[in-house]
Amino acid sequence: MVSGPSGAGKDTLVEALKARHSRLLYSISSTTRAPRPGEQDAIDYFFLDRDEFIRRRTGDGFLEWREYNGHLYGTPRSFIDESLRAGFDVIMKPEVNGALAIKERYPGAVLIFLAPDKFSHLRRRLEARRTETNEQIAARMEIAHVEMTFVRSFDYLVINEQAHPEIAVDDLEAIVRAERFRIHRLPDNRITELENT
Amino acid sequence: MVSGPSGAGKDTLVEALKARHSRLLYSISSTTRAPRPGEQDAIDYFFLDRDEFIRRRTGDGFLEWREYNGHLYGTPRSFIDESLRAGFDVIMKPEVNGALAIKERYPGAVLIFLAPDKFSHLRRRLEARRTETNEQIAARMEIAHVEMTFVRSFDYLVINEQAHPEIAVDDLEAIVRAERFRIHRLPDNRITELENT
Repeated sequence: MVSGPSGAGKDTLVEALKARHSRLLYSISSTTRAPRPGEQDAIDYFFLDRDEFIRRRTGDGFLEWREYNGHLYGTPRSFIDESLRAGFDVIMKPEVNGALAIKERYPGAVLIFLAPDKFSHLRRRLEARRTETNEQIAARMEIAHVEMTFVRSFDYLVINEQAHPEIAVDDLEAIVRAERFRIHRLPDNRITELENT
Repeated sequence: MVSGPSGAGKDTLVEALKARHSRLLYSISSTTRAPRPGEQDAIDYFFLDRDEFIRRRTGDGFLEWREYNGHLYGTPRSFIDESLRAGFDVIMKPEVNGALAIKERYPGAVLIFLAPDKFSHLRRRLEARRTETNEQIAARMEIAHVEMTFVRSFDYLVINEQAHPEIAVDDLEAIVRAERFRIHRLPDNRITELENT
């Protein structure tokens, strides 16, 4: 999971990482909001009506969910379980709260906190998007400071250098690669199997 | 620390890794054996006479030491402490026992167990060296099986594919890179500093 404050560059970096890794599946979120022009079901989001979302939520169908701007968003559990069972690594970009909630369900999950090299860059990037009012940006900056208090619950801190985002992509790639060799991920019989070869 | 059974390829892979990483210092061992032709003091080993070795050992000068073939070998503590203080990462190739002993002194140390893709390759590589008798090789194979029982005390297991050793070098490099971002290595004030930028 790649998480961190809004404006740290999660979308761009995860997009670049996906382009490099064939064994990495991207977890698709579900939402009750209407598709925007060009958005496709099961690619950008799983688009659900509100009743169906709530039905699935009641049936423990989401790892985490939240309401934003009157719409429901959630991380579907089945897609992740099926992908992991098939031997894929799954990458997702939950919010900080969501990442910590998912980690409780999947203790083997790897939590990467992505932060900007300068905190003031967050505000500048949010302003550059021109999608939010000054009040909304101020609220996001408040949230960013709260999110920073959870860094110590993560596994890694990666700094996205504004001038060299490709370094952070290399960093993420190294973490994905290294984590595949962690001893705690070894199947119980792996050592015995190896000794018998 | 890169450890694992004799014949797994530690020397070759660590040599290749050193060639790639400027910020990686190689820990030089001390020994009481005489220099072989071409070996240089403070490059291949710190060559010490037995009295001096024992004096330093008594003074807690070695992280771990062992006697082999009548000669004493040890990992000097000062070189490692000074290198770490100067901000370098240090790489070493202790034996499995030594690696676990050093981890107790340096809980932040990263333990990588290097194993061959086929266990039978160990014997073949030892035979190809033509430096040991059949009895010595049999003893090393016994030791290798004992060493495998300690894999779960390590952090990572990297498999050295006989036909593609460069993959294992990439794996080691990814681990070195990823470990630099581990949250538990962050200085206490790093987060506050970041928020004030």
